[in-house]
Amino acid sequence: MSSIDPINELQKLLYGRLELVDQLSLKMMKSENAPRIPEITKHIFSSGGKKLRPLMCIASAETLNYKSNKHITLAATIEFIHTATLLHDDVVDESSTRRGKKTANILWDNKSSVLVGDFLFSRAFQLMVSTNSLNILEVLSNTAALITESEVLQLTNIRNIDIDLKTYFKIIEGKTAILFSAACETGAMLATNNIEHIKCFKEYGRAFGISFQLIDDYLDYKGNTKLMGKDVGNDFYNSKLTFPIIFTLSKATKLDCLNIKNLFKKPKKSKDDFDTLLNILNKYSSLESTKNEAIKWSEMAKKSLLSIPNNKLKKLLEEICDNIILRKL
Amino acid sequence: MSSIDPINELQKLLYGRLELVDQLSLKMMKSENAPRIPEITKHIFSSGGKKLRPLMCIASAETLNYKSNKHITLAATIEFIHTATLLHDDVVDESSTRRGKKTANILWDNKSSVLVGDFLFSRAFQLMVSTNSLNILEVLSNTAALITESEVLQLTNIRNIDIDLKTYFKIIEGKTAILFSAACETGAMLATNNIEHIKCFKEYGRAFGISFQLIDDYLDYKGNTKLMGKDVGNDFYNSKLTFPIIFTLSKATKLDCLNIKNLFKKPKKSKDDFDTLLNILNKYSSLESTKNEAIKWSEMAKKSLLSIPNNKLKKLLEEICDNIILRKL
Repeated sequence: MSSIDPINELQKLLYGRLELVDQLSLKMMKSENAPRIPEITKHIFSSGGKKLRPLMCIASAETLNYKSNKHITLAATIEFIHTATLLHDDVVDESSTRRGKKTANILWDNKSSVLVGDFLFSRAFQLMVSTNSLNILEVLSNTAALITESEVLQLTNIRNIDIDLKTYFKIIEGKTAILFSAACETGAMLATNNIEHIKCFKEYGRAFGISFQLIDDYLDYKGNTKLMGKDVGNDFYNSKLTFPIIFTLSKATKLDCLNIKNLFKKPKKSKDDFDTLLNILNKYSSLESTKNEAIKWSEMAKKSLLSIPNNKLKKLLEEICDNIILRKL
Repeated sequence: MSSIDPINELQKLLYGRLELVDQLSLKMMKSENAPRIPEITKHIFSSGGKKLRPLMCIASAETLNYKSNKHITLAATIEFIHTATLLHDDVVDESSTRRGKKTANILWDNKSSVLVGDFLFSRAFQLMVSTNSLNILEVLSNTAALITESEVLQLTNIRNIDIDLKTYFKIIEGKTAILFSAACETGAMLATNNIEHIKCFKEYGRAFGISFQLIDDYLDYKGNTKLMGKDVGNDFYNSKLTFPIIFTLSKATKLDCLNIKNLFKKPKKSKDDFDTLLNILNKYSSLESTKNEAIKWSEMAKKSLLSIPNNKLKKLLEEICDNIILRKL
């Protein structure tokens, strides 16, 4: 594995395109009538995400030698959908910080976050219509529907201590992996009519996204608050059952299972509760197992690209699969 | 004007099509994974709206002799967008009843309303993509963006006692009229390539929608709680400045203006406050003026159809313009 950060490498290599995505995004964020909209969207866009999804969309198209500029529009579309879901997620999760900054629902209010999320969502549809491709529109509208469906599935499984891994994977595939998958698939669709190649990118994005979410769930127990800019233990405090817990429940003694259940049932959870839970997780090496599961998916992502012709961009897309495992935020 | 209710007439005449819209809607509401979705959507779809928007979409297409079945999909799309905005509106307005039933945000919670609204919104996009028409997609995605933009504009003008009629009309055109306009315009687009005819239906829907919202604002001061299934005075209690108030402020003495401003400023408003406000409105015949403004727009809607060939459906579309003025709920 390269010692250079492949995400930085991609960002450098595709700098010009990312600039165009930013320009288009800024234009589409504008609202003459409602100045609250650019206020909130600027806040959330400028909070320093890595722009991983637009980056992967552009890289997928250009790995297949795409030479035109519709991937700029597509990348902005993907980022708008992502940002809209972040705004609504923070309302639903009652989050107060994201990437070290106060969330929009705290700085303004829930109402603004709901409506500005809707605005970004509808702007995403305007953008995707402007690509003039019904095939791409179909993929992206199906993606949006699956994301929202999975968010509801997640909400209705809050505090459901009996949730199984099948449901967990259904949730993360829908709420996270599908957007990575759509970013790569539609990027490839712009570049080629080769159905097999398009499938490779679709599968690559999906497996990458699952790995990404597993590491997210891992870091929520293992991460460093200062680095991540959000609190460790959020999933526990919000009674969200994720891989480390579901895995432990499938391995642990009856007594440990009962202890976990009682901790999750508590309406007010303390730092001590979190530490008690961590001790049980460590007893079963559950965090290591979560990381290993993420590595499995990351390897699958890399394998998905096997039949794609080699070039520098493809190599970087493979390398970010390893990199995502090492991420600390 | 006919003594028969033209909306009932349209519903009878287009019964078969409305049945198909219902079937399609039910299919698109389904979610194998997240049963909360059909629970909530059934609740809101079955709460007995008149289905005015899908009705007008279908009637517009068939007035122009449309013979195929894409208007079924289009009508369902329009109703899904409408229902999604209702779910989010109720969260933003903190409403507890709609059409005499408890709202979803009360029966379930705000989180579910936000996410299920998102789901319906994305389902609407799946539906519209299935019409395979990029022109229609463009109109509808622009419509969705304008609706959400106007909702934000409305939110940021809550308690803004200095709001002028220009801003008021911008808000109601965006939050209400544009969807009626898009319903009629896209219905016509399916039926004809005649740009003038399409424009007529677009303008018809817009003027109808403005009239519809003016009557809504009128009824919020004048209506009958039992009949309407929602409380009179909502706009006042939510500090929403609408035509009756903005009109009064433009006509009233300094003292009356000050009284109105003070009433709106109160953080907790009582029934007595509402009655005091009503007395001031009556002094300037503001509710009659609101109704007259609605009649003006309703007449404009009728005139928009002048160049459209006469038939039974066109006659009913004209008649609902008069009917909307008489509505009591």
